[in-house]
This record gives sequence, C-alpha cells and structure tokens, in this order.
Amino acid sequence: MFEKCITLLNDRGVTLYDIADCVMYLQAKYHPEITVEEVLEVIHSVISKREVQHAIITGVSLDMMAEQNTLCDKDLQDILIDDYSLYGIDEVLAYGICNLYGSIALTNYGYIDKVKPGIIEKLNEHIEGTCNTFLDDIVGAIAASAASKIAHNHSN
Amino acid sequence: MFEKCITLLNDRGVTLYDIADCVMYLQAKYHPEITVEEVLEVIHSVISKREVQHAIITGVSLDMMAEQNTLCDKDLQDILIDDYSLYGIDEVLAYGICNLYGSIALTNYGYIDKVKPGIIEKLNEHIEGTCNTFLDDIVGAIAASAASKIAHNHSN
Amino acid sequence: MFEKCITLLNDRGVTLYDIADCVMYLQAKYHPEITVEEVLEVIHSVISKREVQHAIITGVSLDMMAEQNTLCDKDLQDILIDDYSLYGIDEVLAYGICNLYGSIALTNYGYIDKVKPGIIEKLNEHIEGTCNTFLDDIVGAIAASAASKIAHNHSN
Amino acid sequence: MFEKCITLLNDRGVTLYDIADCVMYLQAKYHPEITVEEVLEVIHSVISKREVQHAIITGVSLDMMAEQNTLCDKDLQDILIDDYSLYGIDEVLAYGICNLYGSIALTNYGYIDKVKPGIIEKLNEHIEGTCNTFLDDIVGAIAASAASKIAHNHSN
Repeated sequence: MFEKCITLLNDRGVTLYDIADCVMYLQAKYHPEITVEEVLEVIHSVISKREVQHAIITGVSLDMMAEQNTLCDKDLQDILIDDYSLYGIDEVLAYGICNLYGSIALTNYGYIDKVKPGIIEKLNEHIEGTCNTFLDDIVGAIAASAASKIAHNHSN
Repeated sequence: MFEKCITLLNDRGVTLYDIADCVMYLQAKYHPEITVEEVLEVIHSVISKREVQHAIITGVSLDMMAEQNTLCDKDLQDILIDDYSLYGIDEVLAYGICNLYGSIALTNYGYIDKVKPGIIEKLNEHIEGTCNTFLDDIVGAIAASAASKIAHNHSN
Repeated sequence: MFEKCITLLNDRGVTLYDIADCVMYLQAKYHPEITVEEVLEVIHSVISKREVQHAIITGVSLDMMAEQNTLCDKDLQDILIDDYSLYGIDEVLAYGICNLYGSIALTNYGYIDKVKPGIIEKLNEHIEGTCNTFLDDIVGAIAASAASKIAHNHSN
Repeated sequence: MFEKCITLLNDRGVTLYDIADCVMYLQAKYHPEITVEEVLEVIHSVISKREVQHAIITGVSLDMMAEQNTLCDKDLQDILIDDYSLYGIDEVLAYGICNLYGSIALTNYGYIDKVKPGIIEKLNEHIEGTCNTFLDDIVGAIAASAASKIAHNHSN
C-alpha cells in the first residue's frame, strides 16, 4: 500500500521532494541544520501509517472521479471541481492525518494551508479540467505532520 | 441542500424517525421526559449545518459508488465493500460532525458505534451487494450530536 | 458565566476589541465590508458557548496559578512559566474551541498562532513574572472561531 | 518524565495493571490471545509519548488542587469537585491523547467512558474529599489508545 500511495501522489504531480520542500519551509527557522535526507525519511514514516494511506487513497480517488466526471452525485461533482471554499471535508481528512502527530502538526497545517508554499500553491492553480481539492490538503497535512515529528525528535 | 440530504438518507433506508430512536436510546436515562417531536426538531437543526450536509453527500456517494462498482480505485472499492475494520475515514467524517457539538457528542458517538442500536445495527448487516460503510457512522454521528445538543439545552 | 469570562479576559489584558482586531485581520481579504459591531456580536456568541467558557476559566486559572507559583506540581510550573514549545495542552484546549466551528476555524487558528497579529503577539512577549501560556491560544481560538462563523454566515 | 507519570498515577490509585484490565476488556472479543505482558508493553509505549505525559501532569494537577481546595478560581473549584457533567475539558484532554492513535482509539474511548469498566468505575465513585474528574478520562484515553495500537499491530 505504501508503494501504491507514492505512485498515486506522483501520478497526481507530487513528488516526495515537493513535500520535503514544504517541510523545510515549516522547519527552517527552528532546525536549519536538518538535511533533505532526514526529512525524506520522516515523510516515509508518515506515509507508512495505515490511516494516512487510507486518506490518500480516498481523497485522491474523489479528485480523480471529479476530473473524470464519474462521481454519482452532481452536487458533489460541482463542489469538488469548483473547490468550493466552504466545503470542509478535505480539511477534515487532513486533520485526520495531523491529529496522529499532535498539536504542532495541526498548527503547522493551518499555517501552510493559508500561506501555500511551493507545490501547495501549484496544486491550487485550478487549471481547467483538473481537480486537486483533496490533494493539496493531504500534501499539506503530510508535510505538517513530518515537521511536527521532526520538532519532537530534535528536542530532549 | 437540506431537502436533498433528507432524501438521500431516505433513499439509503434511513428515516429521521430511525435517527430519533438512536437519540432516545442515548438520552433515555438522562432526560426521559423528552418527546420525539423535540428530538426530530434537534435532528433537523443538526442536518441544517453545511458541514453535516457535506459529510452526508460525500459519505453516501462513496457508499453508492462502491455498490455500483464505479469507484476509480480497486483497493478503495474492496475496502468499502468489505467495510474493512481498520479503515477509519468513515469515522474521521463522523468526528467532523460530532466535533461541532462538543465532547459529549464524541463520547456518545463512540458508545453508539460499539453498541449499534436500531438502524445502526441494521446498516451493519453487510447484505451482499450493499455498502453502508460511511452511512452507519454518519447516522451515528448525527444521533450523537443531537443527543449532545439536547443535553446542553436541558441544563441550566 | 459569560460576564465572568469577559471580566477574566479583561483582567488578563484582553478586551473584546483586541479579539475583534484579530478577526478583522483574518477576514479582511474575504469580507472587507464587515463592521466591528458585527464582529463583536459574533465574538459574543462564541463566548456564550458553555464549552468556550470552560476553556477560558480552566486555561486562565492555570496561567494565573503559574504566575502566583501556586501550582501543586513543580514540572508543570516550569513548563507553563517557560511556555515550553513542545507542551501542547494549551493548543489542545484551543482546538476544543475551534472544533465547534468547523474546519475553517481550525485552519484560521493554525495560521493566527504562527503569524501572531496584535494582542496575540503582545501576549507572547514573555515578560518576567507573567504567564499567558494558555491565554494566547484561547484568544486565537476565539478569533479563529468568530472568523469561521462569519465566513459561513456571509455565504449562501 | 515517564517515571514521574507512573508514580503520579500510582499515587492517585491507578496501577498499570488497572489500565491493562481496561485494555483487555476492550480487546477481548477481537484478540483473545493477547497476554497481559504485551498489553503492559503497549501501555508503556503510550505513556512514553510527550503529549500523553503532559496531559497526565496537567489533568492530575487540576484534580489534586481541587481536592486541596487550592485552585485560584471558585467556579472551577466547584465544577471539578462536583464533576459537573457538562464540563468537557477533561474529555478534551482525553481526546488529545486518543487522536494520536487514530479513529479506533476515539471510538474505544467513547465506549469505555460510558460503560466504565474496572478502575474507571472506581474513579467515578465520587467519594467525599476526592476529585478524579480528569483522571478517569485520562485513564480511559490511555486504555483506548493502547487497544487501538494493538488492533493495528495485530492485523496485516
């Protein structure tokens, strides 16, 4: 399932390096000494969690079916394609990930979701025919969780 | 959107009276004087919330597409049709509802999800060809939220 | 209890206008037409909730006892006076507030907690002999919740 | 900090064996083959988490100060001594623990909080002069989290 999730993310335009960039962005002022290798390792451990994998598969499937116009519900189709700002189920899924990594992960996520660094901005470009309503929040949640884990690891 | 959600629930075999029964079950020992009319009114107010409506539409759509075998992902299809016990996204959506009604709602939900009174048991029968993986949790969350609101209303 | 909470906040250096400033900061780019009067009304409704009042009383009491050095536990005393960055119970209480207002409130809170506008920055100055470990998070959570309620009210 | 938390729990009348009994109660029908030794090991790993330790120290301190009548706020004193049913900050702290272990932990906690097996019932006896308003929820949350971890470990 881990490999499948990495492939899904790649197919949707997100590499683990993109996520690592977001983690570096969140951690830069606290732990400037951290290497990309260490960050990638932590991202791996986050995506190894069953609950994270289920969030990826569920969210990305909803995005893909919205793109393919194969969702069974017309209202849901419109909401996802438009990335309707008051639809919060994408954030609910993201919080399901962050909660596993404690309160620092939640705060990081709220921040990254507003500031939209790197890949998260790119996923929010709303290009005609594409839908990343869930993906941007999932990527943000994985990055926020990895940054939280690093904060806990690098203290004593 | 409210009417649509009521219709969706009915189409999937759940009436507001079924949900009211669950609320009565949760509240019986604390507020035996409560009438079905009052309970129905509270259930209406819960389903009037935008975040609850979005959870209903998203969860029920996933159940329906699993039944129709039209989900774009084979693993997700298998997980939902089997109601795989370690898949927790259905509970994550349910918590997205309960959180809006505070800690009593969360506790009520955890209880009802284990004891499975009335309609929730029925939705869990796993009849061949049907899928209610999300629906039973959503119904439990609505009932738990309504019971929490009643507890707060009936105190001083 | 409502009046008591307002007094507690004032005694700790926080007026409802300070909180309104934070809400305006969060909402400025989405709803520039909103008046301070409307924002104050929404803040009132947030602080009217029993769960919010309990969070205020509990958090502020912990801050005050840390200042007075009357906490029964020496480690807790040190953690609160130092505002130890990996102590997350203050954020846990804040999330207990935000959860009542949905996913937008959580995202707003994560953002405000990092950016620290106005009164939140001031509460974070860590002046010798003062402790606002819980207060800054509670104020941020009330502002984030009010902003979320405004976002939901001002849509259709 | 780990040793301190174990001592705090013991001083308040809770042994790790008491918590293990609650975990066995929750897991009995799913994994009857589990030994007390394995359960104790998982409980150790839960209490090793920094966020869990902070919840224990904060909650137990509030209980102890309520017993000693040394809380700085009279209303908070009354609420904690009476274990006021609509005070939910104890559950908010408990959810702060359970969230780290995913949705199964949350459901387990809601159930155990209602059914109150073993030590949790005992902590709820409300003996004059004692206060366990936070402790029963913290013990329930640790047990629920350990049971969730076991469920995830024992699957494939």
